[in-house]
Amino acid sequence: MNNKLKITFLGGVGEIGKNMTAFEYNNEIIVVDAGLTFPGDDLPGIDVVIPDFTYLINNKDKIKAIILTHGHEDHIGALPFVLEQIKAPVYGSRLTLALVENKMKEHAKVSYKAVTVKPKNVLKIGHFAVEFIKVSHSIAGALALCISTPAGNVVHTGDFKIDFEPIDGAMTDLQRFGELGKKGVNLLMCESTNVCRPGYSMSEKSVGRALDEIFKTHTENRIFVATFASNIHRLQQILNLAEKYGRKVAFTGRSMINITDVGAKIGEITFNKNILVDIDKIDKVADKELLIVTTGSQGEPLSALTRMATGEFKQIKIGENDLIVFSSSPIPGNEKSVYNVINALFQRGADVIYDELSEVHASGHACQEEIKTIHSLVKPKFFIPVHGEYRHLKMHKQLAMNLGMEERNIILATLGTQIEMSQNSIKKVGTVTAGQRLIDGYGIGDMDSNVLRERKQLSEDGFCVVVMTINNISGDVVGEPFIITRGVVYQDEAESFVQDTKNMIVACLKEQDLRGCEPAVIKNTVRRNVSNFIYKRTKRRPMILTIVLLD
Amino acid sequence: MNNKLKITFLGGVGEIGKNMTAFEYNNEIIVVDAGLTFPGDDLPGIDVVIPDFTYLINNKDKIKAIILTHGHEDHIGALPFVLEQIKAPVYGSRLTLALVENKMKEHAKVSYKAVTVKPKNVLKIGHFAVEFIKVSHSIAGALALCISTPAGNVVHTGDFKIDFEPIDGAMTDLQRFGELGKKGVNLLMCESTNVCRPGYSMSEKSVGRALDEIFKTHTENRIFVATFASNIHRLQQILNLAEKYGRKVAFTGRSMINITDVGAKIGEITFNKNILVDIDKIDKVADKELLIVTTGSQGEPLSALTRMATGEFKQIKIGENDLIVFSSSPIPGNEKSVYNVINALFQRGADVIYDELSEVHASGHACQEEIKTIHSLVKPKFFIPVHGEYRHLKMHKQLAMNLGMEERNIILATLGTQIEMSQNSIKKVGTVTAGQRLIDGYGIGDMDSNVLRERKQLSEDGFCVVVMTINNISGDVVGEPFIITRGVVYQDEAESFVQDTKNMIVACLKEQDLRGCEPAVIKNTVRRNVSNFIYKRTKRRPMILTIVLLD
Repeated sequence: MNNKLKITFLGGVGEIGKNMTAFEYNNEIIVVDAGLTFPGDDLPGIDVVIPDFTYLINNKDKIKAIILTHGHEDHIGALPFVLEQIKAPVYGSRLTLALVENKMKEHAKVSYKAVTVKPKNVLKIGHFAVEFIKVSHSIAGALALCISTPAGNVVHTGDFKIDFEPIDGAMTDLQRFGELGKKGVNLLMCESTNVCRPGYSMSEKSVGRALDEIFKTHTENRIFVATFASNIHRLQQILNLAEKYGRKVAFTGRSMINITDVGAKIGEITFNKNILVDIDKIDKVADKELLIVTTGSQGEPLSALTRMATGEFKQIKIGENDLIVFSSSPIPGNEKSVYNVINALFQRGADVIYDELSEVHASGHACQEEIKTIHSLVKPKFFIPVHGEYRHLKMHKQLAMNLGMEERNIILATLGTQIEMSQNSIKKVGTVTAGQRLIDGYGIGDMDSNVLRERKQLSEDGFCVVVMTINNISGDVVGEPFIITRGVVYQDEAESFVQDTKNMIVACLKEQDLRGCEPAVIKNTVRRNVSNFIYKRTKRRPMILTIVLLD
Repeated sequence: MNNKLKITFLGGVGEIGKNMTAFEYNNEIIVVDAGLTFPGDDLPGIDVVIPDFTYLINNKDKIKAIILTHGHEDHIGALPFVLEQIKAPVYGSRLTLALVENKMKEHAKVSYKAVTVKPKNVLKIGHFAVEFIKVSHSIAGALALCISTPAGNVVHTGDFKIDFEPIDGAMTDLQRFGELGKKGVNLLMCESTNVCRPGYSMSEKSVGRALDEIFKTHTENRIFVATFASNIHRLQQILNLAEKYGRKVAFTGRSMINITDVGAKIGEITFNKNILVDIDKIDKVADKELLIVTTGSQGEPLSALTRMATGEFKQIKIGENDLIVFSSSPIPGNEKSVYNVINALFQRGADVIYDELSEVHASGHACQEEIKTIHSLVKPKFFIPVHGEYRHLKMHKQLAMNLGMEERNIILATLGTQIEMSQNSIKKVGTVTAGQRLIDGYGIGDMDSNVLRERKQLSEDGFCVVVMTINNISGDVVGEPFIITRGVVYQDEAESFVQDTKNMIVACLKEQDLRGCEPAVIKNTVRRNVSNFIYKRTKRRPMILTIVLLD
């Protein structure tokens, strides 16, 4: 029996998104989080990106539990794919599990067991004891963990902030962090998202105050608020304001409707059902008595708000009496789409308030002083920064050293890193298979798959297919070559392009005697010539495919 | 004779980039700036984007001058394309014209006349008098304009900031703006890039002080500074520091080498040639005596710095003794690439300092208090905010109203807007053709061209080509259908995919009697069936092309 705790990083280190960590002691594994990442423009056609969890599959019999710190997609989104291959009970707060349930509806064939936990609960799983600790975050029901094993204990913050005025009245449990620290914590794993930001994050309540001011001063406008559907506390504040200022509320966007439903059902969000109005009936409500709460705060192309901005949303025409509040901030990479929507709304005459102009959004992640507070309460022996790009982890290491930790007690992990910890030591012991799995319809690909390379090439310069029939006795081209291009030629070049290319092929084949040649030789000759011809003429390098049929 | 001044916006309003404005009086036109935009991931395969200047082509005989406010690409980049079609002398500062000359080398067939101007010069062109006014910006030789006509005068700021400690000692000429305002300015056109940022922009000299501190405290490291090649004053400060701290300087990156050459030649940048060392000879210089000045501050894939970060730059291996300073900030849209490079450098053990961590970059654009200063000095009758997305123009309008301007005296322009001004009136009179021209090799396309749509579709799901020979008497498929896909099928699906698709086609054609059918009917039947088959199997929708050959 190995009396060490083995920790394997399958996601969330050296990247933002798709968190997943395995804790292993004495042939028992608990998995913390199973998240996904939404792909950027660099992964065309990919639906979502999940962790490569080959390591878990290879050790599936050891897995005793999957523990979810909170219900954001980067922590729960890969769960359906994991549960397809691994049978283990899933633990999380009520809201987290309600969101999981909602998600699993689309994967009806996968059955799983869910167990609701609460702050202060302690879960015994084999040699593990896992205690759940209340933290504030931009979603309700977020939990930090204290994972105890005979090899020592680990405090894992999950995603958190310290909000001194939390909406649900229950603060990040600083006392418990302090108590655990006092008793002795071997390892702290702390999130690093905002480690570059000095000071404290804004309280969720101050967002409420900024929104209140907006409602108070815009009494005549129709008001729209765009925000993240999962930010239940934000929604609660918005609904309270609607009630306070006598506005009916219409929800738009599938996830907004889903989550308010789920939230209301489990009591995480409370409001008078009378204030709701169906989006199809808002014509009957005066502008100044209406609030529309919508998805699309990230400029997603198909979202309700984007369609309003482009005039494609049939129930709502944006005009001069409309005030749109983005109670959100652009997720890195979405800036351009978000500002495009904001510009389009302005151009329709609406007024738009967004985070650059007013305090209408608060981040859910701890800034430097909050992170320092956790370090100072927990006072761990060892430290591993998690949940961040490498630059964040590096910065977090520096922060810990500034607080007095020794460099040798801090480990920077990347995807696949495996470390072993005992009461008095910690060290990297190796690397396991880890990385990105790209979900593309029913298929799963890797970052370096041919499919992505080909799509990338096609997106740059399109393609040109040449089909030729060649008489393999005479070596002559039978009839004309057949040419199709897509993504290569502009309207005003098109007319002559195909004919000139055909002529070039015929001429070049005439020059060379291809009688009895292998089709591969003919194909290569034609491909090379067509490629050069097109480049010379257009300065583009489409993918050239030649098909030679023998007659 | 129309005694109004007509102003036509062909670029730079409602967008960031590709500035171009035409001023027209009594059949005489002067064009201010001719810029380009670098395309994002949403325009795959496109080299650059220039303004649609059909309006200028249609009025080419009236054009008397092209005036350049400064040498950034978004102000001069479209010049080669404009000069191909329009003959007019080009006016600009010495550095601006030196950069133009450099650029025109690649367009040797286009001849043009260049005239150097200086601050305080007044140029008489027909009914126009154009006065040049010194402004500070992130490139040397930036000029604002006062354009006088019988219909009134216009102050056009170009891109500017108010730097109280400019590197070249000559400040933005606030006195002249005040003097002009005192005499009476009809119209102010003021840039809006940073209108959402409160306060003042940082002085270029404070960047120098931050860099000095870095050089002073990192005496043992090999130092790299990545910055914009065109920021001559930044380069000057960096070269001064090299001299001060006894470091040899190696430049890498084509534009860095070009611009320091050009700048030194015209005396805009001065340094002792002895401190230069060729990048191929840096092995002979001790780390602590070396400074490498490089391009790539935007994470451009092929730049020197990106290749160093990925280990593909043969002369330089990044290691633990290296300090890399990003004296820049990510241009919106480039965040992801920039942080990828920073993360990769950190992972190679280097230390990296970037704008989030230290004051190593100053924007070249005026913030709110600077913009207010210009408004208060110029005190114009009318105002048009320029150089910004629509949200910036809108915000700038609000700023002007807060300073006391009446709403009816402010015009928000978008691409193609044409306004007319007289001494006492200003109004929109119409819209001309304007927009984006996409330069793609030798071709020019529009935003809505088939080529871009096809590339986008190909990048999402690839394509599948089916070639069939059909005996048009029997209606039978001759031989097997031929199938090629690209960007569709992953390795582990590939084996059976092509064969199954072939079988499906043969089976489906057998079911239907296609004897004597038009090839178009056969093609469509096959395309529909293949598309459904692939979707059902993979949940992807590649572009399907069917080619039917008749035997």
